[in-house]
Order: sequence, then structure tokens, then C-alpha cells
Amino acid sequence: MTDTPDAPDTAAPDVRPGEKLAAMRAAAPLVQNITNYVAMNVMANALLAAGASPAMVHAREESADFAAIASALTINIGTLSPEWVASMEAAAASATAHGKPWVLDPVAVFATAYRAEVGAQLAGLNPSLIRGNASEILALSGAAAGGKGADAGDAVATAEAGARALSARTGGIVAVTGPVDYVTDGTRGYRIANGHPLMPKVTALGCSLTGICGAFLAAGETPLEDIAAALAFYGLAGERAAQGAGGPGSFAVAFIDELAAVTPEDLAAGARITPA
Amino acid sequence: MTDTPDAPDTAAPDVRPGEKLAAMRAAAPLVQNITNYVAMNVMANALLAAGASPAMVHAREESADFAAIASALTINIGTLSPEWVASMEAAAASATAHGKPWVLDPVAVFATAYRAEVGAQLAGLNPSLIRGNASEILALSGAAAGGKGADAGDAVATAEAGARALSARTGGIVAVTGPVDYVTDGTRGYRIANGHPLMPKVTALGCSLTGICGAFLAAGETPLEDIAAALAFYGLAGERAAQGAGGPGSFAVAFIDELAAVTPEDLAAGARITPA
Amino acid sequence: MTDTPDAPDTAAPDVRPGEKLAAMRAAAPLVQNITNYVAMNVMANALLAAGASPAMVHAREESADFAAIASALTINIGTLSPEWVASMEAAAASATAHGKPWVLDPVAVFATAYRAEVGAQLAGLNPSLIRGNASEILALSGAAAGGKGADAGDAVATAEAGARALSARTGGIVAVTGPVDYVTDGTRGYRIANGHPLMPKVTALGCSLTGICGAFLAAGETPLEDIAAALAFYGLAGERAAQGAGGPGSFAVAFIDELAAVTPEDLAAGARITPA
Repeated sequence: MTDTPDAPDTAAPDVRPGEKLAAMRAAAPLVQNITNYVAMNVMANALLAAGASPAMVHAREESADFAAIASALTINIGTLSPEWVASMEAAAASATAHGKPWVLDPVAVFATAYRAEVGAQLAGLNPSLIRGNASEILALSGAAAGGKGADAGDAVATAEAGARALSARTGGIVAVTGPVDYVTDGTRGYRIANGHPLMPKVTALGCSLTGICGAFLAAGETPLEDIAAALAFYGLAGERAAQGAGGPGSFAVAFIDELAAVTPEDLAAGARITPA
Repeated sequence: MTDTPDAPDTAAPDVRPGEKLAAMRAAAPLVQNITNYVAMNVMANALLAAGASPAMVHAREESADFAAIASALTINIGTLSPEWVASMEAAAASATAHGKPWVLDPVAVFATAYRAEVGAQLAGLNPSLIRGNASEILALSGAAAGGKGADAGDAVATAEAGARALSARTGGIVAVTGPVDYVTDGTRGYRIANGHPLMPKVTALGCSLTGICGAFLAAGETPLEDIAAALAFYGLAGERAAQGAGGPGSFAVAFIDELAAVTPEDLAAGARITPA
Repeated sequence: MTDTPDAPDTAAPDVRPGEKLAAMRAAAPLVQNITNYVAMNVMANALLAAGASPAMVHAREESADFAAIASALTINIGTLSPEWVASMEAAAASATAHGKPWVLDPVAVFATAYRAEVGAQLAGLNPSLIRGNASEILALSGAAAGGKGADAGDAVATAEAGARALSARTGGIVAVTGPVDYVTDGTRGYRIANGHPLMPKVTALGCSLTGICGAFLAAGETPLEDIAAALAFYGLAGERAAQGAGGPGSFAVAFIDELAAVTPEDLAAGARITPA
């Protein structure tokens, strides 16, 4: 037995995800989220269940003021408008000026010219972390996606290379989430194998993960490992919620329960993080 | 046993709802929804559970671009603003120009002068389907509702006549949903008796049905029968979800589970569709 | 046995909460809510489950028209914009002009200068009820909050004094909700001890309570007692939902079920209301 919840012999001993979860809950960080309308409620509930304190503050008249007092900021481009984009930029600048971490979630940045423009603009404002799926990270990195003939392994390798390139450009961390997550600071990286196939069948679980990442960044001191821990925590909650779920509806309910129920010890034992 | 999930001796043999559900799931159509804030999350989850791919894209800067790549569009006037109305009109025009079906959901169109104006404007843009409750369809059709003395049977007959009149005017299909649903192309029609009294006790289930209708239209080839199948599918999921539900909260969760669980065979056996 | 659901020997015999719940359900009042994006869905479901009829109508083009036909109006400043503020002011003026009660929920009014300004402005428009937590009521009352050295008892006393001062200023009722709720008309008051610690772990349950207060005001005739009854009803549903809940996710689902399940008799027996 050790005096911490993380056993010393995990595959990625530097991450110590259990300790990071405990630290996040002890800090109960105030996380400001400018997110899309679809995600607002579930994201707030996910943050509350995990032990953080969410604030959904997006008005241009107050977003920058609030970013100065929050412990972290997250910005999601899922449902845009020009007013909101102005508010996002002001909030991101305020977070940076006050030394607060901020996270960009470039939802469907590849889908329209407007999203591509806004996504590139926000990515230029020094996000501490960009979290997206493979298509989003590749689109934002400017890398060409694998051709039709590319197999799944090639696609993963391409996405990871895109993440490193994007990280090098922004100077922040980049996370690609999917069946296996990958997070990198441009040089070092981790793969996280936690998760469950029901997770993408519930809307806004990716968006909500962005909030959880913000909470771990706010409370942590080693950002790359903070995010590896956040991703493992979220995936483990999904694995546990899937046990006994009767479909995506009951899974979504159990998932919120599990974000509250997973202990630091559970996470230390259940995290599947490997250096990459 | 037949080689399809639909038995040949149903009351409405042309509908083949099981086949239509299977076709929708095989296509997993991308359905763009411009809907109200109350409904966005549950509508996205309903579409995901049923097997479609939802996208909640409403910004004026991108709604028309997105309608060009989506397989269907749905527009709901539940929470309006002038910017959104402009976006709705652009998206509807784009859908029509690109040969994509689009569905209008005239929520509470009778309640204010603003809604009446916007509803009439959108109804003039060739919706493939208008889906509403009896009061909404009657208000949009311009028909006078039954007087205080009218009994329930008269009210149903009036709503069905209003639906046919509205269909004749727009050139599209019109569906009136309620305890028994009715769908018509102005000439032919079907009544669908599936459903459960708990459904109207959960907010946004009507709005979400509009999305499901869009998914069936996107994947189908006989619009009147596509909608009859969609209505039966939705109602059957409600009937199954009500079994064991402890109230509207647990019903809403089970309903999402059932949208995923109902098989084509279940629907072929459980659909209660009759020509009307 | 008496002929009403309220026993004559409760600590606050004038409240008769069971009768008030029965009256609200019999009236099924149409409650218009201008609320934040996070709360819209759960607030609508809470009102439906409790037996009222919610309408989420906030557009400037129609909010005042709708307030004229609704039975009550609630306004929540959780997610603001200048357009919405104009709509809120028009709706509040319309409600007052038409003799309809309206409720103000000053969410996080202390957090930014913009919120403070909007909160003060709306509080000046004769709200029938202001409902907030202690920090919100203190901020709006202009009272200084207790210093760091103040103990919990002092903080409660300060909040109750702030509520009375705010009530005297607005001429309406003020409710401070927390572990024990307090409601006052500036002179008389009640404390309500119902509730459960899981309630603040679910987002928007405070916002939704504002809607329930609107429903009880719409149906009642003694506003101070109407609100005491509404607070007891809501807290009792929370107590019952917590039995068997596996965490905040399943609690939130059971809570909606319980809003529908609590009977007037249950409330008469379970309400913990004392004059204060």
C-alpha cells in the first residue's frame, strides 16, 4: 500500500490520475463555459457531478469580466453567432491576460466556411488546450486527412501527427478523442484507452468532456498529465455507466451518477494510460 | 415467415413501416435542425438513439451552406428571433434548391401575431411536411376551429379537414399528431393509433418527432408512407417506454432507450396504421 | 379525518399547502418563462410534471403579447443579452399591466457589473416575488454580507434581514432558498425545512423552482402562503427523489417523477413550514 491512490507501477507513472482527481475535487474550480445550446445543461451537470463549479456565461457584456474571476474558461463553437464570437474572443483574451487556462472545442470546424474561419481565429488566441475528434483536429491543423484507401491505423497515425503539428503551432496541448484518446504537447504524449461505444450515442458528451478538461487544468500543475487524467476519468465513468444501461437514455443518467461516484482509488486502478 | 419484417396482411400494407425503419437506420441520415432551445438536447438524443445523425445548425452565417450538405432539414418556431427567421428562410430555400426534404413545425403558431406571421411565411416556402398538433394545423390552415359545442369527434374531423386543406395549399404532406395521428398528402391519408398519454407530459417530444420525420423522409422514397411509419415508430417507442415508468422523468429516459431498442420486426408487429 | 388534505394542527395552519397544490393542479396555469438556456428544458419538464402548463417565450417581438394571456410570468437573468433584457422589461410591464403575478430570479446578480445593473433594473419593476439564494438576495438588497468571521447562524440572520429589506423596497414577496428556505412579505414570514443536499448538485433546479412559484402564485390568493406551499412541495419532492437515487443523474430523473407523484395529502403530511 502507498500513501497515495496511485500505485507506483502503472504504465504511465507520472500521470497519477487518482491524485489529480482528488486535487480537482478539493479545488472545486469555477469553470466558465461558452458552449452550444445543445450542451449547456448536460455540461453543467457533468461538471457539478464531477465536483467542479460550472458557470455558463457567454454574453459579450460580461464574458471577459467573468473570465477574470473564473479558474478556467472553455469555448465551444457548436452553435455560433457573430455576437458570440466577439464574446469568445474577449473572454479568451481575458483568460490569457489573467493567467487562467482556456480550452477550445472546435465542433464540426470542417463543416462550413464560417466555422473554419472562427475556429482558426480562436486557435490563434493561445488556447491552453484544443480538444476535438480526429476530423476536427485534422481540419484545424491544416493537415490533409488520409485518403479513401487509408486504413484505420493510418487514420489514427495521421490524427496524432496532426495533433502534434497543431500543438507546435499554438504552443498549447492538443487532445484527439475517440475510441482511444491521444494527448500531446507537441513532443511528449499519452494514449488513453478508457471509454465505451455508448458515449458517442449521447449528444454533448464530447462538449462536456471539454469542461472536465478545464476543471483538471484549473486544479493541476502539469497540464499534459492533467489532461491524460481527465480523459481517463471520463472514459472510466463511461465504462462503469454502461454496465446495466438499457440504452443511450439510461446510460446518460448513469454516466452523471458515475462522474460523482468514481473515487481517486477507482481511477488509479482503472485508468488505462500509456506514454506515446 | 416472409423475407421482410412487414407481414403482408396489415391494415395498411403499402406502408411497410419495419422496412422503412431499417432503411432509415441503414442510411443514418444527417438531419439539420433549426429548433427551439428547449428541444435541442432531447431532439439530438432522440435522433441519435433512433439511428440518425443530428446537426443543430442555425446561425445565419452557415445555415444555408449546411442545408446543402444535410440529407434533410427541420425548422421549428418554438423560440424565435428575427435573426433566426432569416436563417430559417435561407436554410429552407437552400434545402429546396438542393432537392432535400424539409419539415416545418409551427409550434404555438396561434399564440401571438409574430408567430402567425412567421408561420405563414415559412409555410409558403414549400415544406415537404408540416407537423403540428390540431390547434397548430388548424391555425395555419386558416380554418375556423370547432365551436365550444363541438364534441371530440367533430374536433378530429375538423383537424383532418384542415390538414387536407393545408396540404392542398402547400403541395406538401401535413401531419396532425395527437392521441391518434393523421397524415395526408391532400388526397390519401393514414391514421396512426400508436402512442401513450405520458408523451405530452414530457417537453419537446413533439419537436423531437419532427426530427424523426425528417430522418424518415431523407431515407425514404414514398413520403406519405415514410411519415406514417415514422409516427408509428415514435408512438410504439412511447408505448414500450411507459411500461414500468414511474412518472414523466423515468418515462423520458426509457423513451430514448426504446428509440434505440425498437427493431424493424417490432415495428412491423406493433404499428397500428390504417388508411383514412 | 377532515374534509381537506391539511390537518388543522400543523405548525403553520394558515398555509394549508395540500390545498394549494390541489388548487394549482386544478388550474393548470399557463406560466410564461424567460429563463436561461441551461434551465429551459428542465424547467419546462418540472412545470409539466407538477401539473402546470409551461411556455418558454422570450422574443422581444412577442414576450409582452404573451404575458397578457399567460397566468404568470417568470424572468431569470442566468444567460443575458441586451435583446433579452428589453424583452424581459416589456414582458414584466405587460404582466403588471394585466394584473398577472411575475417572479424575478436574479441568478448570480453579484458576479458581474452587467448582472448587477440588469438585476436592479428588473427589481424596480414591481416583481410579485423575488426568489434567490442568500448571496443573490443580499446583493440585490444592497446589504453587506456577513464578514469572514460570521458563523452560519449569523449568515442566515443576515440573509433573512436582507430579504425583509428587499421586500420593503419592492413591495413584493422575497424568498431566500437554501438548506432552510425563508419567505417574507417584509413583515410576516415562514421558514420551510424541506429539501435534500442532492438538489444543488443538479443544475437548474433553483431556476425550475422559480417556475413552480409562478404556478402557485397564478393559482393562489394568499401570495405569502402560496410561496411557502410551493417551497415545501418542491423540497418534499427532493426528499422523496433522494430515496434510492444512485447519484445526481438518477436523482434528477426521480425528482421529475416525484413532482408528478406527490399528492396534496402527501404534502399536507410532509410539509415542514413554521412561522418566522
